[in-house]
Order: sequence, then C-alpha cells, then structure tokens
Amino acid sequence: MSSTWGEKVKISVFGESHGNGIGVVIDGLPSGFKIDRERLLVQVGRRAPGGDLTSTPRKESDLPKIMSGVLNGVTTGAPLCAVIKNTNTRSGDYANLMTCPRPGHSDYTAFVKYNGFNDISGGGHFSGRLTAPLVFAGGICRQILEEKGIKIGGHISEIAGIRDKSFDPVNIDSQLIDRLSSEKFPLIDKSVEEKMRNAVEEARLDLDSVGGIVECAVIGLPAGLGGPMFGGVEGLIASAIFGVPAVKGIEFGKGFGLAQMRGSQSNDPFEYSDGRVVTKTNNCGGILGGITNAMPVVFRACIKPTPSIAKEQDTVDLQKKCNAKLSVQGRHDPCIVPRAVSVIEACTAVALMNL
Amino acid sequence: MSSTWGEKVKISVFGESHGNGIGVVIDGLPSGFKIDRERLLVQVGRRAPGGDLTSTPRKESDLPKIMSGVLNGVTTGAPLCAVIKNTNTRSGDYANLMTCPRPGHSDYTAFVKYNGFNDISGGGHFSGRLTAPLVFAGGICRQILEEKGIKIGGHISEIAGIRDKSFDPVNIDSQLIDRLSSEKFPLIDKSVEEKMRNAVEEARLDLDSVGGIVECAVIGLPAGLGGPMFGGVEGLIASAIFGVPAVKGIEFGKGFGLAQMRGSQSNDPFEYSDGRVVTKTNNCGGILGGITNAMPVVFRACIKPTPSIAKEQDTVDLQKKCNAKLSVQGRHDPCIVPRAVSVIEACTAVALMNL
Amino acid sequence: MSSTWGEKVKISVFGESHGNGIGVVIDGLPSGFKIDRERLLVQVGRRAPGGDLTSTPRKESDLPKIMSGVLNGVTTGAPLCAVIKNTNTRSGDYANLMTCPRPGHSDYTAFVKYNGFNDISGGGHFSGRLTAPLVFAGGICRQILEEKGIKIGGHISEIAGIRDKSFDPVNIDSQLIDRLSSEKFPLIDKSVEEKMRNAVEEARLDLDSVGGIVECAVIGLPAGLGGPMFGGVEGLIASAIFGVPAVKGIEFGKGFGLAQMRGSQSNDPFEYSDGRVVTKTNNCGGILGGITNAMPVVFRACIKPTPSIAKEQDTVDLQKKCNAKLSVQGRHDPCIVPRAVSVIEACTAVALMNL
Amino acid sequence: MSSTWGEKVKISVFGESHGNGIGVVIDGLPSGFKIDRERLLVQVGRRAPGGDLTSTPRKESDLPKIMSGVLNGVTTGAPLCAVIKNTNTRSGDYANLMTCPRPGHSDYTAFVKYNGFNDISGGGHFSGRLTAPLVFAGGICRQILEEKGIKIGGHISEIAGIRDKSFDPVNIDSQLIDRLSSEKFPLIDKSVEEKMRNAVEEARLDLDSVGGIVECAVIGLPAGLGGPMFGGVEGLIASAIFGVPAVKGIEFGKGFGLAQMRGSQSNDPFEYSDGRVVTKTNNCGGILGGITNAMPVVFRACIKPTPSIAKEQDTVDLQKKCNAKLSVQGRHDPCIVPRAVSVIEACTAVALMNL
Repeated sequence: MSSTWGEKVKISVFGESHGNGIGVVIDGLPSGFKIDRERLLVQVGRRAPGGDLTSTPRKESDLPKIMSGVLNGVTTGAPLCAVIKNTNTRSGDYANLMTCPRPGHSDYTAFVKYNGFNDISGGGHFSGRLTAPLVFAGGICRQILEEKGIKIGGHISEIAGIRDKSFDPVNIDSQLIDRLSSEKFPLIDKSVEEKMRNAVEEARLDLDSVGGIVECAVIGLPAGLGGPMFGGVEGLIASAIFGVPAVKGIEFGKGFGLAQMRGSQSNDPFEYSDGRVVTKTNNCGGILGGITNAMPVVFRACIKPTPSIAKEQDTVDLQKKCNAKLSVQGRHDPCIVPRAVSVIEACTAVALMNL
Repeated sequence: MSSTWGEKVKISVFGESHGNGIGVVIDGLPSGFKIDRERLLVQVGRRAPGGDLTSTPRKESDLPKIMSGVLNGVTTGAPLCAVIKNTNTRSGDYANLMTCPRPGHSDYTAFVKYNGFNDISGGGHFSGRLTAPLVFAGGICRQILEEKGIKIGGHISEIAGIRDKSFDPVNIDSQLIDRLSSEKFPLIDKSVEEKMRNAVEEARLDLDSVGGIVECAVIGLPAGLGGPMFGGVEGLIASAIFGVPAVKGIEFGKGFGLAQMRGSQSNDPFEYSDGRVVTKTNNCGGILGGITNAMPVVFRACIKPTPSIAKEQDTVDLQKKCNAKLSVQGRHDPCIVPRAVSVIEACTAVALMNL
Repeated sequence: MSSTWGEKVKISVFGESHGNGIGVVIDGLPSGFKIDRERLLVQVGRRAPGGDLTSTPRKESDLPKIMSGVLNGVTTGAPLCAVIKNTNTRSGDYANLMTCPRPGHSDYTAFVKYNGFNDISGGGHFSGRLTAPLVFAGGICRQILEEKGIKIGGHISEIAGIRDKSFDPVNIDSQLIDRLSSEKFPLIDKSVEEKMRNAVEEARLDLDSVGGIVECAVIGLPAGLGGPMFGGVEGLIASAIFGVPAVKGIEFGKGFGLAQMRGSQSNDPFEYSDGRVVTKTNNCGGILGGITNAMPVVFRACIKPTPSIAKEQDTVDLQKKCNAKLSVQGRHDPCIVPRAVSVIEACTAVALMNL
Repeated sequence: MSSTWGEKVKISVFGESHGNGIGVVIDGLPSGFKIDRERLLVQVGRRAPGGDLTSTPRKESDLPKIMSGVLNGVTTGAPLCAVIKNTNTRSGDYANLMTCPRPGHSDYTAFVKYNGFNDISGGGHFSGRLTAPLVFAGGICRQILEEKGIKIGGHISEIAGIRDKSFDPVNIDSQLIDRLSSEKFPLIDKSVEEKMRNAVEEARLDLDSVGGIVECAVIGLPAGLGGPMFGGVEGLIASAIFGVPAVKGIEFGKGFGLAQMRGSQSNDPFEYSDGRVVTKTNNCGGILGGITNAMPVVFRACIKPTPSIAKEQDTVDLQKKCNAKLSVQGRHDPCIVPRAVSVIEACTAVALMNL
C-alpha cells in the first residue's frame, strides 16, 4: 500500500490534490549529473493542463521547487526532493461531500480502506495531480538515460476508436522519438489529430469523456538487461505503469495480438545486420525471457475514459444508505490520454533506471 | 534480476530444466495451516504435461518433496522449501548447442546477460518447468485464501482465435470457479473445446504452435485492499503474472476495450444490493484507484505461441557469426495455454497473499 | 546507498544542511490517527540545540511544515511529508573548502563516493541536522505506539566516562519512561548531571569534544513479535539505529557483558507472575531467538565524540596532495549525546512500527 | 519475519533441525564464477562440529548438494540452491516436549509467535544448524570477493574473559587473514588457546557453558562504498550479523570504547602514504559517514553463552501453568564461539556482496 517504488532508484511520491503541496523524493540518483532545466520544463509542460481544448482550462503552476539533492544545477547524490505548493488548497469542510462516491473513482474504495479519514477534496492522494511529480522525476531520469543513448517516446495510439499509425517496431527513428517526446499531442500521423480532437470535443459537449491507448517505445537499450521470472523487464515496466491512475492494461510487442498468431509468425527470426544480431520482426517488443534483445522495447497501455463526467450517473448515498444520482461538478478533462503520454514516458524512465 | 518475489509472503524459485532439481522457498506463511495434499496434487497435476493431446507426451513426475516448514502436514511458520528432483539431468556437453539461438526463446538474451555461462539445456532457468514450483507455491497459498472465502479460477479465454465465453464480471458463481480451477482444459462453454483442440492439433501437424488468452477471476475479496499508485492491486498482480514465461500482456476489467468507451459507459454505477454497496457493471475489474471494491477481480493475460517449433526458422550462428537455419528438435507443446491457466491462478494466489 | 528505510512504514529522509530544506516522507501510516501537536513539539524540542550549555548556541527553528497526509490534524493514510525550510542556506562558492577533509567526518568518504559533487557545506546530507526529520517521524510513530501501550524512553547512560544508573531491566516503570522521554538531559539518577555537564564544559574549553552511551528501553511490547534469523528484532532495531550519525555500536540486554558470563548466569529463568510468563532476569534484553518475550526491550548505543573540534588536527590537502593541518571553525556541540537520546528513541519508534 | 536477506544478492535460508533438510537459495550471483570446492569445504568444515573438545561430539555431514545455479563447477547466474539432507530426522511425537521452554532459547517466544505450531525438535528453524547454509553461502561470496582483492577474517577475541590480542586496525596483514580464515580455533596469539580451552572444559564439567567475542576484519575494500543514514555499511553489516543466533551486540572500530574518548583522540587523522590517503589510527573501523575509507573494516560481535546447559534451571510448565525445573538433555557445545567465527565471516561476506 505504498507510493514508493524502485530498488536502485527509489521514488516516493506524496501529496494530496488540495493539501499544502505535492512532490517527490528521488533516492539513488548518480552524483554529478547536470540537470537541463529547460528540457525538464518541456516535460512538466506536456503534462500540465491548458492551452489545448483536450485538457482542462484551469490554470495551474506545476513548477516544482527543488529542496535538496541539487547544487548549482548538478545532482549531489543525496536524495532529491521537489515540492509543488498547492495554491488551491481546501476551503471549508468537505466532509459531507463524501456521501455519494463518484463512479469510476477511488472515492468509495479509499473510503473503505482509510475508514473515511482520507482527504477526498479533489481526489486527495488519488488525484491526477500526483502525476506531476512523477513527470518531474521521470524528466530527470530520462536525461540521465539519454546520456547513455537511451531514449523514450510515446504517442497517442488511439482516442475514442480513432487510431494513429503504430511504431514500426524494428526501425524507430531517434528523430521521431525526439519529436514525439516534446509534443503535447504526440502523433506519428498528424493527419488524425483533428478527428481525435473532434471526438473529444463531441464527448465534452455530451457532458461525457473518452479513453484511449498510449504506445511507448524505448530505443538504445543494450541487450542483456532484465532477468528471468520476476526479474523480467515486462514486470518491471508494468509495475511502474500501473502506478499511473487510469491505466487498466499493458501489452508488450504484439501483445494480445499474439493470441491469434502461430509460433512461426510470432517468433522473431534472428539475423546479422552490420555485424550485430537483430530480429527481422519485433513481435516480442524487444524482450525475450524477460531480458532485452537490443531491439526497441515497445508497449501499449490503455487509459480508461476520465471518470469525472457532468452527465448524471447512478451512485449510492453512504450516509442514508440508499441509491442516489450524481453529476460531477467542476471542469474536467474530457480526455486525459494526451497528458498521459508524458506520464507513461516518465514512469518508463524511472523503471529503466532500475535496470 | 531476481527469481524472488513478494513482501509479506516471499517466494524464491530455483532450478534449471536439466539440473539436479527445481523448487521453491516460501517465506512468510502463517503457522498452523493444515495443507490438503490431495487438493495440492490436483493443482500440480493441472500444470503437468500428459494425458492430453494439447500437451507433450513426455512423462514427468512433478511431485515435490517438502524439505522444511511443514510438520505432520501443518505449516510451522518457518520457510517452506519444496524440491522436485530432476530425473532427466544433463548428459554430455551441451556447450556447442549454444551456437544457434532459438527464435522467440531466451537463448540469445540469456547468452548476452550471462556471458554464455547460463545452463542452456532444456532452457535452463528459463524453462517452463520452473512453473511447477510456482503452481506448488500457489497451490498452498490458494488453500489459505479459500479459508478466508477467497477463490481463484481461470479459463481458456481464447486459443488460436477460437473464443470461450467470458465471465459475467458482476456475477461469478463459486461453483463455476470450483469447476474451472480443477480442470485441465477449463472452459466456461465446453462446446468450444473440440474446436480449440482441433486448432491445436492442426498447428502440431504443421510443425507449428498457437497462442491464446487466459481469463482469471478472484471472488470473495473484501473492499479496501490495495492502495494508490504503486501500491495498486493491478500492479501487484501484473508484476506476479509477468513472472510467468510467455505472458506478454495483461488487462483488468474491460482493459483495452475501455479505449473505445465513453465515461458514461465505462464508469460502473454504484447501487445497494442486500445492504451492500455493489456496482451494476464491472468494467473496472473490481479495482478502483488500485483498491478492491469487493466485486470480482477479473483480468486477462495473453500467452504467446510456444516458441519451440519443428518448422524451420531463420536464426544466426553465434560462433561463425553468420545467418543460419534451425528446426527445434524434441517434442514440445504446440499450445501451452491450458497448462498456463493453473500457473496464472497460482501466481495470482501468491500475489494476493501480499495484500 | 539509501536514505529510505522500512517495509510496512517507510521513511524517506531528504535534505542537506545548507540546501533549501530538509524533511521526511512517511509512507504507510494508519489513517484516522489524531496527531498530538504539543507532544510532537516536545520531541522536536528535545533534539533542537539551544538553551543548554551542552549544545550549540546557534538558533534554529526545527518546526516542520506538514505538506500532506494530515487533514485537520488527523492522518489521512496518504504519505505524510514534512518539510523544514533552511533559513541558513549556502552563500558563495564552497568548492574550495573541500580541500582538507575533517577527520572523523564523512568529508573524505563522501568526496570519493560522489566524485566531489556532494554538497559539503555544513556536512550536506550527512549533517546532524538530518536527524530533525527523523525525530519528527519518530514523534508521530511513538504516539501511535503509545495508543497500543508501547512506550519508548532513553537516558544518557554515560558521558566522558561518567555513568548514570542503568535501567532495572525486569522492572521499568511507565512513569520513569514518561519522565525520561520528555527531558532534554534525561538521566535516571539526576545527581550525575552536574558532573557530566562539567566534563562537557571542560572538553569545550579544551577545544575538544566527548562521546557517550545512550541506553534505551521499550515497554509494553507483547510477546511474539519479530522472527528468526534476519527477521529478528535486534537486527531490525540495529539497522535503524545505525542510521543515526555517530552511532558506532549497539548491544541488547547484557550485550558484550555476556562474553564473561556462564550460561547458568546469562539464561533468564522463566517463572509465572500473576498468571503471565516472565523472566526473573532480563539479560537477553527482552528478545529471544529474535522474538520479543514481553519483558522490556533494552539496548545501548555508543555515540562517538563530536568530530568537529576547534583543536588543530592532522589532515590532508586533496588538491595539493600533501599533508595539512586543520582547525574546524564555527561553533559545534562539544557533546551530542543528550540530543542523540531523542534521535535514538525516534528511530526505535520507526523500527517498531515495522513489527 | 523473514529468513530472506539482501537486495543485490539475496539469500533465503530454510530448514528445521530435524526436518527433511536445510539449505539456502542464493539469488543474484554473477555468472561465470568458478567455485573452488576445496576452499568451500574448508569453510563448511570450520563451522562443523567435531574433532575438537570445544565442540559437540555428534557426527554430522554438512556437505551440501547443489541443486541449481552451477554447471560444471561454474555459476550460471541462475539462483543457486544447496540442500543438506537431515539424516537425523524426527521420530515420534515431540508435542509434549513443548511444555517446559528452555531458558535462553527461542522455545517460549517461538511458541507464542507460531501458536505452538513451530517445529521444536532440536530447535527447529532456530537451530544453530541453520548456520551451515549461511557458511556455505558466505563461502561462495567470499571467493567472489577475494577475486576483487577483498578478504575477510575473524578470530576469537574473547572466551570466558580470556582475551586474544586485537587486530592492529591500521595494518592487517593479508597472510594473517588467510591463516585465521582457515582455522577452526582462530587466534592472533595462539598462546592463549590452552587457557581458553581449559575455561571451556571447566564450564563443561560444571554442566555449564561460556560466551565470548568474535573480532572480524575486512581488508581490500575500496573507499566510497556504502552511504549516508540507512545506507551505511555499519547498518548493513549489523543487520546481517544479527541474523546469526546468539549474537547480542556489535561495535565498529573502538565501538563502546569511544564513549570514553575525546574527539581529539577518536578522530582518525588523515595523511598521505605512498600517494594514497590513509588514516594514522582506525578508531572508526574503516567507516566514516556510513562509507568505507579504504582502511580495514573492523568490528566485534558478542556471542552469548550456549543456552543449552545440563545444569538444572528454573522454567515454567506451559501446560500445567506452574513453575518447573529443567535440565537440558543431550550433548551441546559448551562454547560456540570458535564455530561462530566462520558464521560471522560468512554473513559479512554476504553483506559485502550487497555493496
């Protein structure tokens, strides 16, 4: 029951949506790494809402303050703590809000787990706001990885049934990764953007929301990382990615598509290319026996539709112990998939620091 | 890089396919639990090959010997170690086998990771045989869970594109779980069995193999287990399930299907039923905010086709550093999905002991 | 290489002496616990310097700000983060200070470990200031433990060779624990206070420092906590206590004195007392086979003399690569033993939360 | 509550004194290491009883059988499991033995913890026999460390008040370490051996037992290993050493002696010697700020007298709930200190593999 993750590089995320602040402690970073603040801000900005019809019009400053672990912009090797103050803290008593749990949210389950003592305003510790420190932590980790030639980039694979092209998993260009990992609405095929945005807008006008899929790739990993069984790269990445709220599934390589293939199709044949062992296809997503094979690691994660919708829904009244109706107030993202890309990339970066 | 898993109940799996033996240490079991040996053998038998056209005709005795942690059939609270001796150990020098890695296998990646010192005969530590101790460990854990009213059962959701019915996720009968969790070829709708077997047989005659999907359900879990972010039940189960060789994806509830739903459809409305809070649908798979909501936990895991196929495949010769051809010798399961059901149930049981 | 500790309750300490701030994240606290702020301040105050000749005259505000995990004074169950801002941050470039490492300090070893990138001003992450968040975290944990009847109290067992009485380990009064655990200079026998203070003052006038021993007791623990081998209570407490800078040894019960005893003396005979099993002596310090026996847990930890002394010492100049002389500037505690009592109690409290 | 230890190299010890077997799983060993079986047997033999008046005349074969992780004498990188079969298993029903717990033993505390379901015959999982797999695991780890120039050796510092010389902590000869780490009764000054043996024999004739102290040194460690706070080398070693039954205290360098020193004495002055930074004294035991300084790491651990004595002792009868008398039957070591040296060296080796 923990917001702490990792063995070699541990991150410990804290905060509640309307508390005094949110943040992260990153323990185990190497010393002597010069953090590129500009590039960190690009990542933080990708996750931040605003400037875009697909995300919420609230203004929010996600600029974190580094409390420790950095001296003159360079990591000291001590735990790095970064804090984002909430300007938007609780006012008044929210206790009576907790009568009608929002469907699709953690309201009810957190109520049971914490005996009603959890902070429910704005979702508390379960708020999507908590992904801001994750993106910050991942933003540092990805810079360290890039120095070793390892790059991470994702795109919106699908929103509301509208699909982007997929990565060509045997041949992912470094420039494509660079482009995707700096955009707020990253797509391989930009021609689908308008359709996706229209679908999101349509849902918004219906007081509803939509889900989607993020596809993420890692290039530059050497062969031989990971291990058998519970030490496998799939399990490592999955346990980090399921830390992202709203993720309900993950598949590597062809994933669920493998169920309909034969071994002669799904097995990736080896061949020599420029003296290196490569595979002709990459159905395994760059991982065999839990260990990287130096091909791109490719996975897809599905994101459920934003549960906060203005449309009236059935729920219960926990005080009166009867059925009830609920319309979630406030302005909420009708689609969090574009913002989720940066969060998933970030969690992948943190995960890979543990290899 | 570890074959050890868990916090409260730790399992440590060891062994190589053709070494002296394989086994597991289970640390953290409660004392005073009377193990039902007959029911344990049912589970071990479900995973064991033989007696069935879908699995390999090799004879193998998977009867484990308990070395410690049990006195007169009752757990002592000390670590339980169980060992299965290999009757079928290495003979001769296999070193020269390692020239041509089998596509879809860990041969190449393990070779890189272990600098060629890994035991490759029969797949070594990466062999599917290593799932035997997992099923044994899970078999004990599930008995302990059942005493608390928690039951785990899975079925073959799909083989070679042929589909069984899905669980009705709001209403999973205890008797259905009992039936599925004792069968070697568990199906909700037995009428698809023949089609599935035919598809497997067809692949076998083609010197090929097929993959599939396992759907697994847990009933009887109380609400409030799990936690936010990295403490979520999805991440916990996923990290255990990806420990099973050949699993390449996992989805909870509607999973990837959520990508095409709207929030108003995917949110599970709450209602009172007999004084208990339930949900009318169960698209979230029994988990909200990483925490159980007392509805059945339902997930699906995809299993890639058996990589060992007799059909000729392209590979490389690592000694001569050139491309090569390979036909995998020996008799191999053309489809491991039926056996995988018991392994996935077992890993789920071990995972749930950590809640 | 980690400032994170614990399994069930994890603490993650961050900060550097002259950075932006120091603090702690505590993950795994129960929800619904009302924190007694006054009693927390007593603990924080015991560790804080000032008001006492044995400690440094610097003014320092150790009042932490709670960022998360607490709502209206009650724990929410989410990670609790508390931050103490540094008012006294770095000014100027300290890089050239790192030429002559202070004997007895981490200066040299941290320089090697972090390749010179660590923050050395004020000791950086190795500063005794980092014990402030520990005392804060322990202060909350001890309140939770006290609700279960478990109390922790320590005293200055020895300073500069001058000894306080020892606990009577079979009979430790709750009122004694209450008194000791609220005092800044806790002694069982207050008549030795003056002698101890004089010894400290003498050292100070000599531009020197003194060490000592802290004895700590825990009462109210039930029998049966802990476990064999690496799960033992001794190892658990020791690994937490060695997290306190300057601790170089720990012994439980008679500890090193056992070396000169015979089994017939050291074995603690059992007897019934008021229907409960107790021991007539308590040479084992309340722990047998790594497991509590319901007698008081008693241990002693030694504290080395403050390494920062004004007296000239031999050292090296790492730039010029030659031997050098050094007098440590600034005002430093000539004896940290009194303040260490509260830190050791705090770490014990955190450790016991993991049982 | 765990017999599992370690992060990078995990050991998982299992078995009960009179069960089917005892053993260990070592996960995380490097691949390609050729195990020197002869030298491993030397270590196993040092711990084994027999051939010596100070230890028990029971015959016991501690030759472990390697089940996995080794191929042709070379580590494969997969988990290494080694099993020692018990030839001396339970016969009859020992249940009624558990009425009168032996003073100084885990009988009572294990009874409470495991609700009476633990295996008590021969001490069960708490038996000193469980140190055999520890010595085996440590024996492999020390060979790997030696290849990196790191050597571990201990000696009997004290038995029954009779003292051996101490290490000169600034100058520990590799040959001395080699000699000590191969002897069954290792002493720096062999002239005290007879006195020690006489004291042990005297205790034996008195139906009693004696305790002692082991001093252990590690040479060849580079500077910069370990970390601040809970990542310190002292805490790491201590948590491993307290896994050894009968250890009740540990001190590094001057340890408790530091309490009576001044800072000007206890601080170890740095100086250049042959271009390397060394310290003139080594009161800190080679560790500053939790990090190695390349001087020898030196620590002492105290061992309580063997609790099993033939002399009549007071105890309780847990069935009749009254006081009782007990003489422990069977032949027991009157002094386990000589055998403990090899166990402490072994645990140190395992601990250092985690740096």
